[in-house]
Amino acid sequence: MDVTTTQVGIVGGGPAGLMLSHLLALRGIDSVVVDHRSRLDIERTVRAGILEADSVRLLTETGVSERVLSEGDQHHGIYLAFGGESHHVDFRELVGASVCLYPQTEVFIDLANAREAAGADVRFGVSDTTVHDITGTSPSIRYTDPDGTPREVRCRYLVGADGSHSMCRHQIPAQHIRQYRKEYPFAWFGILCEAPKSAPELIYSHSERGFALISQRTETMQRMYFQCDPDENVDDWSDDRIWSELRARVEPNGHELVEGPVTDKAVLRFRSNVVEPMRYGSLLLAGDAAHTVPPTGAKGLNLALADVRILADVLQKALAEGDDDVLDEYSQRALDRVWRSQHFSYWMTSMLHRLPDTDAFSLRRQVAELRSVVRSKAGSTFLAEGYTGWPST
Amino acid sequence: MDVTTTQVGIVGGGPAGLMLSHLLALRGIDSVVVDHRSRLDIERTVRAGILEADSVRLLTETGVSERVLSEGDQHHGIYLAFGGESHHVDFRELVGASVCLYPQTEVFIDLANAREAAGADVRFGVSDTTVHDITGTSPSIRYTDPDGTPREVRCRYLVGADGSHSMCRHQIPAQHIRQYRKEYPFAWFGILCEAPKSAPELIYSHSERGFALISQRTETMQRMYFQCDPDENVDDWSDDRIWSELRARVEPNGHELVEGPVTDKAVLRFRSNVVEPMRYGSLLLAGDAAHTVPPTGAKGLNLALADVRILADVLQKALAEGDDDVLDEYSQRALDRVWRSQHFSYWMTSMLHRLPDTDAFSLRRQVAELRSVVRSKAGSTFLAEGYTGWPST
Repeated sequence: MDVTTTQVGIVGGGPAGLMLSHLLALRGIDSVVVDHRSRLDIERTVRAGILEADSVRLLTETGVSERVLSEGDQHHGIYLAFGGESHHVDFRELVGASVCLYPQTEVFIDLANAREAAGADVRFGVSDTTVHDITGTSPSIRYTDPDGTPREVRCRYLVGADGSHSMCRHQIPAQHIRQYRKEYPFAWFGILCEAPKSAPELIYSHSERGFALISQRTETMQRMYFQCDPDENVDDWSDDRIWSELRARVEPNGHELVEGPVTDKAVLRFRSNVVEPMRYGSLLLAGDAAHTVPPTGAKGLNLALADVRILADVLQKALAEGDDDVLDEYSQRALDRVWRSQHFSYWMTSMLHRLPDTDAFSLRRQVAELRSVVRSKAGSTFLAEGYTGWPST
Repeated sequence: MDVTTTQVGIVGGGPAGLMLSHLLALRGIDSVVVDHRSRLDIERTVRAGILEADSVRLLTETGVSERVLSEGDQHHGIYLAFGGESHHVDFRELVGASVCLYPQTEVFIDLANAREAAGADVRFGVSDTTVHDITGTSPSIRYTDPDGTPREVRCRYLVGADGSHSMCRHQIPAQHIRQYRKEYPFAWFGILCEAPKSAPELIYSHSERGFALISQRTETMQRMYFQCDPDENVDDWSDDRIWSELRARVEPNGHELVEGPVTDKAVLRFRSNVVEPMRYGSLLLAGDAAHTVPPTGAKGLNLALADVRILADVLQKALAEGDDDVLDEYSQRALDRVWRSQHFSYWMTSMLHRLPDTDAFSLRRQVAELRSVVRSKAGSTFLAEGYTGWPST
């Protein structure tokens, strides 16, 4: 078998895996990244689009992306639309920070290009990936490369950055990790459409009919969502029906929608998941492999980047000191943000969505909550702090 | 039948009814108050004890109470105890306001004394109270006085300040009001005990076993609560069992409890209720007759006082202008605070209590929420604003 030796073997070539590989390279640490998807498959995955200021800084200051500054769209706030009105929550004014609309696929492209330009060892489109000796000092990744050759990557530490269905996580014996899960009894119906922007920044709209989110992508392509049943069938939804539902949820709160042909539609499930600790032996989990959040707070990609920023530090220390115990620091530091983000995502979700037990009382209470938040500088600031991201730990 | 004529007939001689009668008298408006309870019965009712700064001002500036300043205990904050630690939320530092521990029964005594000294017409211990012609311009209250004589009070406007089971509210035809209700699937086990204070200010304690609240009453008598099942039987709880449960919920968060003999124990049900509008014809509802809140936010008495402050203004205007339409202003102004208080009470309740569907995820999320609140000046300020009370509208 063809064997490569490296310091850190990374399963998963999405933003978490590639950013970690990049940060390690900056510290003079070798890594190999493998992913069963092709590069094109990952590029075509439509995902989140809001970057916290710290995420933007990470991308620019480490030389991954200039484009995020030139092509990303600075959003200085969001609209909270409810009770027949819309209120702009101005993050820049409240906490002196903004977020940046720059789709995850662009982050991936920048990272893949940067890694390629640096001659990094990133292997897309592999199959039959397995990990071995994860508690030992010489763990490995085995896989079959696209031409059918079985290969092995031997390393000192293994990182599972392989997404919410993480194969790596499943190798950890159940008694050594605890999984915290929450299922939400609804989903988002997400569309891409060819239309100009309906608003300059995201509109979070509360409605008796359920939540709707009006987002943007480019000047001519927009992303919108409305809360739906998890079993909703996209084929039951014509363009007309979609627009009529979106209008019914958003326009009573004072926003006009600019319509256009729907080019993509999909039902996105909601799930919260946290694994503790994020380390088992020589294996460390990062990003969605360790935790997923509902999309309402736009935290998923940001959390993944926050993870690997800490993980690169911790791996460097462990390698330099030859001390595995240092790795425990990773969980301790990362989980604090993970849980705050879980709460923030839960808060945004439960404040804005219609739940199965939502009655007239709950709708009034939600509107009173939203009103308390927008009327109070402290309330708006607390929301802005969560949305733009807490300082790194 | 013995008939008295007055401008405002008030059913209910608790704090809401008596304070309204007092505020009307200051405006030169006559009223008669009737209550089926004896004065002693009301004095013996153990109820809430936290007054917002505005409530204290109302009591002192209108000459009802000096005692609230000399005997009331200024609390500059609360303790939020969770995750093995306790955090003091300093209201004075955050919002420049304090609250005052002064039991509702003392507020009642001050009001009853003040009304008595002013020679007000307050009739306790009546029976068979009914209201008539509530949509007309000459409504009335009929009742039997303690010596068996049937009596009638004719008035221009009627006020139902007769508590959560309000007889007055039940006279409004269902199609003319909307009731919003929320039941909470738990209750509070409340005790009075003979012991010195365990802490100078209230301790709100989050625990896997459920919520506990350590409150105070006097130097030698304390009030404590722990979340329990609504069907809990007080007879199943010995002093030892009570103290052991309280300790288990509070001491892991860093507070020692000073124990003493339990002199009173009762299970308090949780319920949220709002009636809209708070007016029907010539009848106006105030305090618990119009809305109840769970006790976690200590809002019940404060809301009742806020109601009657607005109501006195509106009644004065309506009487002066001879215009019933002015009365609609009451609901509009009062309900804004009512719903914000409902949300605040819901927030404090859901952040701190163990719910039937509480799982490991929810416990972690609650701790993360509490941590976010105490770590963020904005979060703590948002809580302090709600606890100390919003400015009057």
